Amino acid sequence: MEKDTNFSEWYNDIVEKAGLSDKRYPIKGMNVWTPYGWKIMRITDAFIRNELDATGHDEVCFPLLIPETEFKKEKEHIKGFDSEVYWVTHAGLNELDVRLVVRPTSETAMYPMFSLWVRSHTDLPLKIYQIVNTFRYETKQTRPFIRVREIHFFESHTCHATEDEAQRQVDEDIVILKKIMEMLCIPYTLLVRTEWDKFPGAYYTVGIDTAMPNGRMLQIGSIHHYRTNFSVPYEITYEDADGAHKNVHQTTYGMSERLVGAMIGVHGDDKGLILPPPVAPFQAVIIPIPAKGNASVVAAAAEKIKDALEKAGIRVKLDDRDERPGSKFFDWEIKGVPLRLELGMRDIDNNVVTFVRRDNGEKGTVSLDDLAPGVTIILESIRKSMYEKAWAKQKECAVNIDSLDNVPERTLRFGWCGSEECGHKFEDENDLKLLGVPYIPEEFSGKCIICGKPAKAAYASRSI
Amino acid sequence: MEKDTNFSEWYNDIVEKAGLSDKRYPIKGMNVWTPYGWKIMRITDAFIRNELDATGHDEVCFPLLIPETEFKKEKEHIKGFDSEVYWVTHAGLNELDVRLVVRPTSETAMYPMFSLWVRSHTDLPLKIYQIVNTFRYETKQTRPFIRVREIHFFESHTCHATEDEAQRQVDEDIVILKKIMEMLCIPYTLLVRTEWDKFPGAYYTVGIDTAMPNGRMLQIGSIHHYRTNFSVPYEITYEDADGAHKNVHQTTYGMSERLVGAMIGVHGDDKGLILPPPVAPFQAVIIPIPAKGNASVVAAAAEKIKDALEKAGIRVKLDDRDERPGSKFFDWEIKGVPLRLELGMRDIDNNVVTFVRRDNGEKGTVSLDDLAPGVTIILESIRKSMYEKAWAKQKECAVNIDSLDNVPERTLRFGWCGSEECGHKFEDENDLKLLGVPYIPEEFSGKCIICGKPAKAAYASRSI
Repeated sequence: MEKDTNFSEWYNDIVEKAGLSDKRYPIKGMNVWTPYGWKIMRITDAFIRNELDATGHDEVCFPLLIPETEFKKEKEHIKGFDSEVYWVTHAGLNELDVRLVVRPTSETAMYPMFSLWVRSHTDLPLKIYQIVNTFRYETKQTRPFIRVREIHFFESHTCHATEDEAQRQVDEDIVILKKIMEMLCIPYTLLVRTEWDKFPGAYYTVGIDTAMPNGRMLQIGSIHHYRTNFSVPYEITYEDADGAHKNVHQTTYGMSERLVGAMIGVHGDDKGLILPPPVAPFQAVIIPIPAKGNASVVAAAAEKIKDALEKAGIRVKLDDRDERPGSKFFDWEIKGVPLRLELGMRDIDNNVVTFVRRDNGEKGTVSLDDLAPGVTIILESIRKSMYEKAWAKQKECAVNIDSLDNVPERTLRFGWCGSEECGHKFEDENDLKLLGVPYIPEEFSGKCIICGKPAKAAYASRSI
Repeated sequence: MEKDTNFSEWYNDIVEKAGLSDKRYPIKGMNVWTPYGWKIMRITDAFIRNELDATGHDEVCFPLLIPETEFKKEKEHIKGFDSEVYWVTHAGLNELDVRLVVRPTSETAMYPMFSLWVRSHTDLPLKIYQIVNTFRYETKQTRPFIRVREIHFFESHTCHATEDEAQRQVDEDIVILKKIMEMLCIPYTLLVRTEWDKFPGAYYTVGIDTAMPNGRMLQIGSIHHYRTNFSVPYEITYEDADGAHKNVHQTTYGMSERLVGAMIGVHGDDKGLILPPPVAPFQAVIIPIPAKGNASVVAAAAEKIKDALEKAGIRVKLDDRDERPGSKFFDWEIKGVPLRLELGMRDIDNNVVTFVRRDNGEKGTVSLDDLAPGVTIILESIRKSMYEKAWAKQKECAVNIDSLDNVPERTLRFGWCGSEECGHKFEDENDLKLLGVPYIPEEFSGKCIICGKPAKAAYASRSI
């Protein structure tokens, strides 16, 4: 399995060998979350939930099915989704009077309720989220976690009295993002999408992009400011302190199971997955190394280590299978367990356990007197160094270009005057995707790569 | 709101006033889980997850949609569900070649994969579960949590080498059930369903029934033994130690959001919900009772109490809204918070906080020196007494009858010879539902209420 020479094959291979997902389900692009993969997703969800709860969002769960009549209320939105939704047309033996859309995203499910829930300025802000699966009839080639037809994701939806307050929500979302990404060790670039690529119905869209090893950018989530684009057709209004009735300003924020795809792609190596300690189902695996005559002593000591780490809240696995240690090393390397703890008679005599870091292969010992704090420090050090290394790669991936000759397979930074004409020309003639302009403005002195006029920095890459 | 005189109206009223669910969503029987209700469900899910994890079940997540071709493999199963499933027939602008069923339960989604996963006797037992939403095109009158068209539930599925081992799984499920129910304070009766009422495709079905205040039994879950009824059509086989290829024996176990409906119905009173402490989103609410001049002292003391309880892992709410205490009492009574803590100047002077139990109105004080342990003991005492009280009601609800004249509005216990003929006659002529015979055999000396032949005990009630 060589990650650098054939990323795509390596990726599929890892997903299968690490037991993350089974794509043999009889519908293409709808995969089974097997236990190890689902555990990673659920731990990731828990981080998201924590951050959203801590910022005053309430968790809800809206129905999956949306009546066509509600779905069609916002014109741009339905145009954007028309070709990629699943339709329920029959129930039991009857044809339905009104067809039902299987949720591709929940604006049109939620907003009719928001119009009932929001009455007065004292009801604002309304901040809710849900963690559910969503459905897109994907026609391109599917790939586990990255392009699937049933997508696990979170979506937060907010209503505010003014455009400014909605704007502040966008900025809060970016703070939340930072905290989540520190746990998952995934770097990101925030790019305001082009007008023709923004979310259908949005005022503007901020894409959250991560560089994959093949030089392409993977969108792992997005934040949208809707202004009143949905609150007008869905009649979500509030009575202001002065008695005036106004439409709310709305935002949404979402990230999907692509987070798992990004973790695989950003961190893995030729030996398999490398999981960031905060999301690893097992943060450490203990492997007894018995020799003749001492197997029971080693086994008992390994149990003690397991208990001590579990008590300290560390997710630990004791691998006491009747296999060679080398074969156990191999298995847990594929599964990306951040820390391996090897315990042999010499370790016991020295009152230590030997550790090997999955991220960089570094080896050392931890005193048994200081076991749980010692392991905690190493795990945090792994997290930090994985995040830093990933950020360095993200930055390194982007190259400045001022000509379209011999464009490298990387993320491209270049000048764009901002006109749709130049944007389309750039994309169409070079088979590239214009990802947008930085949400946090960057200094830039170059000219538009198409027309030569004054320009801002923009980013592009091949489509994922 | 009078629970005893009009249970049905009382129930709907409580669901709305406590903020558990919003049924104004534009599809009948598909309701929105609002934050308070969803929190109760999620805490309930967490108990279920704990018990299933602790007994070696792995959590997975299977796709929602099932190809019609897979769905139709087990003949009884499809007959049972034909009239109550939703069909996806179109995707984007295309008609699908193979129609897709929206999962009504996941046998037919999982078992094609099980036939790939199970190869050898060393792969057994296979024990998995998922917590997802499921869909039934319900034609009867809908009711929040009790009869809905999108149903939140867990389903565990197991494969075993022999019928006996599958039988032992059924018994393990009953142990798991007991632990979950101790937390939710819901009593239950285990009844083996009649042949004509068992799960489509099952060898036998054990219904898990709880008596509601209107005297009817509510099925809150079920356990099924399938023998090889599914493993034959789905070709789930294993190679035994002796090299022979055999079909696995299967079981399933599931409980739904009806658990929330049961909690409402079993425990609530005319003032509102009464939540069992283990599942209450807030286990205690602190209400400052300030008098002139001491508001800030009381507020500061209330904050301290909140911090101390939170630190001890108790879910606590400090209600510092600018409202009369009486109006706060009212609000939290509707929401069923198990324990109210009132704090006034006299309490502070006496170094205590005053408590009022929601379940029985009992009042007392807890020393501030002993706050968290004191509150923990009271919460556990509430749980215990709610569970005991509910069990007493469950037992009291069942009455023995030996004639079908003047049948009371209760759960009925009577003699049944076991013949389909007498069973159907009993149901059809009396508009009753024969719930089945006790899973754990009961002593019984009466005769069949229909034919007068020797009989076993059976239970029945009006349909919910």
